[in-house]
Amino acid sequence: MRPNVDPVEHLIALLAKLPGLGRRSARRAALRLLMDPETRMLPLAEALRSAAESVKKCRVCNNLDSRDPCSVCSDPERDAGLICVVEGVSDLWALERAHAHQGTYHVLGGTLSALAGTGPEELSVAPLLRRATEAREVILALPATVEGATTAHYLAERLEPGGVAVTRLAQGVPIGGALDVLDDGTLAAALKARR
Amino acid sequence: MRPNVDPVEHLIALLAKLPGLGRRSARRAALRLLMDPETRMLPLAEALRSAAESVKKCRVCNNLDSRDPCSVCSDPERDAGLICVVEGVSDLWALERAHAHQGTYHVLGGTLSALAGTGPEELSVAPLLRRATEAREVILALPATVEGATTAHYLAERLEPGGVAVTRLAQGVPIGGALDVLDDGTLAAALKARR
Repeated sequence: MRPNVDPVEHLIALLAKLPGLGRRSARRAALRLLMDPETRMLPLAEALRSAAESVKKCRVCNNLDSRDPCSVCSDPERDAGLICVVEGVSDLWALERAHAHQGTYHVLGGTLSALAGTGPEELSVAPLLRRATEAREVILALPATVEGATTAHYLAERLEPGGVAVTRLAQGVPIGGALDVLDDGTLAAALKARR
Repeated sequence: MRPNVDPVEHLIALLAKLPGLGRRSARRAALRLLMDPETRMLPLAEALRSAAESVKKCRVCNNLDSRDPCSVCSDPERDAGLICVVEGVSDLWALERAHAHQGTYHVLGGTLSALAGTGPEELSVAPLLRRATEAREVILALPATVEGATTAHYLAERLEPGGVAVTRLAQGVPIGGALDVLDDGTLAAALKARR
């Protein structure tokens, strides 16, 4: 018979559902937390509750933030005429960490996929088309996968008639990337797009 | 400027402190939770709070459980005359998962280490010696490291004069273990202890 069946088992089961944590590491994490209930466990519980209560989806770009419109959309320094379209919030965060984009974003919420049955209605396409009527340029920063390329193609076809400039991320060798570990597709694309 | 500085950054920082989660995976975990505040985030917050409030250290064996004495110590089916000494609660849980032990446990809370300055006073040695006076056998299930062996040696010297039988875990080839990936020490020990 396993001790601690109730609250500890329940906690481990919930932790094990987090991406990156298996059952084994969930157990280690739970144990570490249980060792310090006051300084580790309750603060984490409080941080979760407070984030769950304060974080909302931005009504403009679908970013997750404690403000709505989000801190990017409501920042007057950001260029609202330059919209960067990303698949998910994690991509938006990555671009923000890189301080790479001075405009605003639009989180699609996925990519088109016939296999997964994801059509344009499942994604935030209509709101993007509405926003694009007042934009100068839309950057399609979608993943370099078949679904990403299909989605970018579809969006470009819908956006371009409206007169907005549609651009895509450059493809090539990553900064600091060694050539011999890169896949053939990236190498071929980098060679073709040489400048 | 990074969006969501306040509650999300705080949550990511706390998640990143969990063993097994780096900053990158903490971010992924936080994002996954933020996607489902009602079904994922608040239940986890509640599970943490409830575990922090209900789980205590067992006054007998130092196990962590929602009961005190813990569910092992208070189980009348368990043999209180057979005490298995482990370094930490995770070892106790591992033995319980294996259904390998019918007696009770004693969690030392560490091993003796001159380097780390851990002496017998820092560990739960005195309570073990008291419990051992009423026990038939003490199994030293300590890690097969220098510190574990030192601690086992020390405990055996303190326990044996009391008349209790002191045993140790068998060492050898793990079940299902291929010989060619085992370290030399284990192989030599397994060969020496052949039967």
